[in-house]
Amino acid sequence: MEEYPLLKNIKSPADLKALKIEQLPALCDEIRSYLINNLSSNPGHFGSSMGAVDIIVAMHYVFDSPTDRIVFDVGHQAYAHKLLTGRFEEFKNQRKKNGISGFPFPRESEYDTFVCGHAGNSISAALGMAIADLNTPGHEDRKTVALIGDASISNGLAFEGINNASQYPNNLLIILNDNDMSIDDNVGALHRYMSDLSTSARYNKLRYRLYKSFRKRGLIADKGKGLMLRFGNALKSLVAQQQNIFEGLNIRYFGPFNGNDVVKIVQVLQDIKEMKGPRILHLHSKKGKGYLPAENNPAPWHAPGKFDPSSGVRQADTKTPGTAPLWQEVAGDSIVEIAKEDARVVGITAAMPSGTSMNKMEIFPNRMFDVGISEGHAVTFAGGLAAAGKRPYVAIYSSFLQRAYDNIIHDVAIQGLPVTFCIDRAGLVGEDGVTHHGVFDIAYLRIIPGIKIAAPSDASSLRNIIHSSLGWNGPLAIRYPRGKADESPFAKNPVGIEIGKGRRITERENARTAILSVGPVLSEALTAADHLSANGKDVDVYDMIWVKPLDTELLSEIAGRYDSIVTVEDGIRTGGFGSAVEEWLEQNGKKLNIKRLGIPDEWVFHGSVAELRKDCGFDSAGIIKAITEEDQE
Amino acid sequence: MEEYPLLKNIKSPADLKALKIEQLPALCDEIRSYLINNLSSNPGHFGSSMGAVDIIVAMHYVFDSPTDRIVFDVGHQAYAHKLLTGRFEEFKNQRKKNGISGFPFPRESEYDTFVCGHAGNSISAALGMAIADLNTPGHEDRKTVALIGDASISNGLAFEGINNASQYPNNLLIILNDNDMSIDDNVGALHRYMSDLSTSARYNKLRYRLYKSFRKRGLIADKGKGLMLRFGNALKSLVAQQQNIFEGLNIRYFGPFNGNDVVKIVQVLQDIKEMKGPRILHLHSKKGKGYLPAENNPAPWHAPGKFDPSSGVRQADTKTPGTAPLWQEVAGDSIVEIAKEDARVVGITAAMPSGTSMNKMEIFPNRMFDVGISEGHAVTFAGGLAAAGKRPYVAIYSSFLQRAYDNIIHDVAIQGLPVTFCIDRAGLVGEDGVTHHGVFDIAYLRIIPGIKIAAPSDASSLRNIIHSSLGWNGPLAIRYPRGKADESPFAKNPVGIEIGKGRRITERENARTAILSVGPVLSEALTAADHLSANGKDVDVYDMIWVKPLDTELLSEIAGRYDSIVTVEDGIRTGGFGSAVEEWLEQNGKKLNIKRLGIPDEWVFHGSVAELRKDCGFDSAGIIKAITEEDQE
Repeated sequence: MEEYPLLKNIKSPADLKALKIEQLPALCDEIRSYLINNLSSNPGHFGSSMGAVDIIVAMHYVFDSPTDRIVFDVGHQAYAHKLLTGRFEEFKNQRKKNGISGFPFPRESEYDTFVCGHAGNSISAALGMAIADLNTPGHEDRKTVALIGDASISNGLAFEGINNASQYPNNLLIILNDNDMSIDDNVGALHRYMSDLSTSARYNKLRYRLYKSFRKRGLIADKGKGLMLRFGNALKSLVAQQQNIFEGLNIRYFGPFNGNDVVKIVQVLQDIKEMKGPRILHLHSKKGKGYLPAENNPAPWHAPGKFDPSSGVRQADTKTPGTAPLWQEVAGDSIVEIAKEDARVVGITAAMPSGTSMNKMEIFPNRMFDVGISEGHAVTFAGGLAAAGKRPYVAIYSSFLQRAYDNIIHDVAIQGLPVTFCIDRAGLVGEDGVTHHGVFDIAYLRIIPGIKIAAPSDASSLRNIIHSSLGWNGPLAIRYPRGKADESPFAKNPVGIEIGKGRRITERENARTAILSVGPVLSEALTAADHLSANGKDVDVYDMIWVKPLDTELLSEIAGRYDSIVTVEDGIRTGGFGSAVEEWLEQNGKKLNIKRLGIPDEWVFHGSVAELRKDCGFDSAGIIKAITEEDQE
Repeated sequence: MEEYPLLKNIKSPADLKALKIEQLPALCDEIRSYLINNLSSNPGHFGSSMGAVDIIVAMHYVFDSPTDRIVFDVGHQAYAHKLLTGRFEEFKNQRKKNGISGFPFPRESEYDTFVCGHAGNSISAALGMAIADLNTPGHEDRKTVALIGDASISNGLAFEGINNASQYPNNLLIILNDNDMSIDDNVGALHRYMSDLSTSARYNKLRYRLYKSFRKRGLIADKGKGLMLRFGNALKSLVAQQQNIFEGLNIRYFGPFNGNDVVKIVQVLQDIKEMKGPRILHLHSKKGKGYLPAENNPAPWHAPGKFDPSSGVRQADTKTPGTAPLWQEVAGDSIVEIAKEDARVVGITAAMPSGTSMNKMEIFPNRMFDVGISEGHAVTFAGGLAAAGKRPYVAIYSSFLQRAYDNIIHDVAIQGLPVTFCIDRAGLVGEDGVTHHGVFDIAYLRIIPGIKIAAPSDASSLRNIIHSSLGWNGPLAIRYPRGKADESPFAKNPVGIEIGKGRRITERENARTAILSVGPVLSEALTAADHLSANGKDVDVYDMIWVKPLDTELLSEIAGRYDSIVTVEDGIRTGGFGSAVEEWLEQNGKKLNIKRLGIPDEWVFHGSVAELRKDCGFDSAGIIKAITEEDQE
């Protein structure tokens, strides 16, 4: 039997549109089979991608991409979109170096309209496109559709977008892909009733009948008539008018419908496609749809890693766990340790309880807060907790912490509040690529007065810093990468850490060059120094640990001992740790040669961490090369 | 007659509480008189402060601050709070150097619970405090109240806070101070009716009667009964259940009441003070209340400057305007000029149309967007507009742009979209103080790959850059300060600017030192160099204009010509323009001495710009001192 007979012939959405509507369920089945077969050996985001197949097929069937603009949100659910837009062959290389991205990405395809990765941006971006088109001669009929999930829409940015969506004329369609299993089917009977009718002729009749009935009872003012089933344009109006279902709501609402019924979705989309004004279509889909193990247990199947398609056994469930813990686990365990000793300790995560291991704190009632995809709120909320005497530990991925930058400055640092930022996924993250690399945090945090920034090089140091942090005042940032930490055994009792104290790792008699490293990239520095020393050029290595405050005593020593310094960091080189060292040398009149290694002033895309480090020139080979070149200069 | 007989005897809220409730209106009158008399000669935020007097008096009368925690939002309406909490005498020095701050500020008073300035943070911070207290033995009965205005509550951060407010047990009270005149009194009749009853016995009876009526008609499910008049805990639930007024809303709502009726507010607060769970109280107040010129024309009376209390004539209305335009006006006019030539140009502001002069763009229908206090959305929305072919110019104050940091990186820069950031109020802003100084932008922006950053030193250059920018690709940031630009006349036609090209200003034969300046602080550099040269030490001055890309050709020339460089910038010294120059020198093996002047690694509070520049050491005297000291080293 031919594999994927429909799918493999779709080179672009035009081929999809040539199908009969009755063929679409079979196409959805093929896409699901393909995803199961492919992702079982080439891991990616599985559950949400399976759930969104029908919606994506329907969107491309009804709309005319790329003339019509489809804007994804986060975009890890967009695999079907990639398969339908000419990337069927390339899909096997998704997330690999030089392969296609795991997210929609404009420079990869004209069908990818906007960057994806950070939740909640789709409505704002799509609104911009919709308004632009309406005001561009010849573009007025282009449609814009934003597809956003139920978690993303709770982000403040999405709210700001929705709040603004009815302010200016536009024909934006927002599709809410709601795959939260907790929604009770029995809730909202009237709502469902009206919604199911909303594209039919009967809808208008009912609406008018209800309107008359409410009006007669004095429940609404006259001008409400035209506004039924519209969505609020301002939180204020919701507050003021929440009980009045006919007023103050300015986005037309349709739904909820079954988001896994491709034929139904096509019909609804065809009905509302040409309507004017902003609209929201609410669809319920099932995560993992079409693959029972994932349907029954969606959490681990969000990104399951490799699995056996026929048995549904995930490799992660079967392999012997290594002895080395994940960095995030070291952080989570250490926070739990101090929480046992000190009742002030609380943990906060922004929708990543398992991703940051902050779920370990759930053993303490009322001391772990998962605030959802609300990084800004997470930090300001931590500020409030700290102002009232708590010691909050906020674990957020580095690239997502960018979303809370002003909250760090304004709501924590200006007041010097004792909030600790556990910056997970710091540095290059690998396959998730450009939107997920955590490469800016050192540079954007170290310019904030009064903040302390540590980048421990091993698991014990991370644990020790977290333990010691309870004795410190003011904001503290601790950065550590994705993946496994080292296997060094922990001391029974943590060792006290001094703020701003680095350490000399090697003492080579003839060394005229010192490598100053921060973070776990120390291992690359050590490998490089060992290699160079074995080849006749002694090089010493320092584990500086602290980006801020710098260990100025150690720096003075280093400046007196060596001719040249090479700094190494897993972060952007511009304005980073190396620049901090350089500023110190200048301010203290030291004339050493210095070379800074790290991520150059350009975007880094996806690939394995090892590949990307090599490209950026701060793997051990890169460090060796930099030091060797220096000698030749 | 004794002046302020009640007010002057209030040394702390305890004295306020000793008054009879009947005396409160007279106290409010005294506070208003005081504000009129004081602010007429010592300018500040007038309209909102006048409007909020009754609410603040009532809060302090009912709650027991500082045991109970009152959290302001933005806080420019908090003058009455300062007067009632022991700062009556000091108030005359508000916003002056070493005087009290114009905003609540924790290090100034124990009654100021959290930092204020950036809109929308109060709910998140107060929620943190409320939860902390509930989980701290002995603190369970402390109350927390957040006072937030109707503009602030539309910010995404406020939404995230509200969305999270019912997730964990807490007794937070949110007071919404709604002073928007546009709210139509005829809207929401049922709402008002029920709300006015909500603290009375009749309320429960009506509620149950309505419930039964709706239930009989099949409009609600059984479990809705307990949830009447509650506010949504998730946007999703609003979307899903908007038409069901009894369900899905998890914050108890009271109001609206008259926010200028102090006795009524006290009564309501006493009624709801001890209630458990999160609550929102909605009050309508009038901006400028108690001073007719401000009541009748609230916009200019927001911060009116000096005025004659008896006539109501503002000094700004009478004085002859100077010839020098404001920086913001130069930007606004220039954007209008290019908008006339190019239909792609659109303007965006986040609630600051007059503050940024973006209101000048209102002459073009559909090409000026005021998105409200939504800096993140403003930038992502601009990204969407740019992705669809427009050329957006986004004017945001520097310190507020911190709130859109991830949007700049993720939604604009990664895609290289041609969005221009007109960064207003860049550098030290003076009297508004620590939360408003725009001192981080150079450092946090220059680490972003592919962005261009210009800091023109005069009005003509700003205009020329804006004109030239239409011919450039990718993101561009232009920073300029608060206040008046220079008076140099504009050329009829703008002059083309080259990206990354600075200029030599002086050519002194014996100069061994060069000052490299960016931005209007050039005038300080020129004064310093003139002074030094007149005193026997020739110093040259360069107007570098570009932070990124650096003018590397000019830098090479400079490195070949001088022994030492002094960089000058109106921004944080850590990681700033000077560090960029330093990085370049290192990467190119140049061994010049370099000294970086700018804002040191500490918080700068309020005072005049001249005073603060002096403190930071980059006024002309500071530059002279730095160069003189260097000679002595």
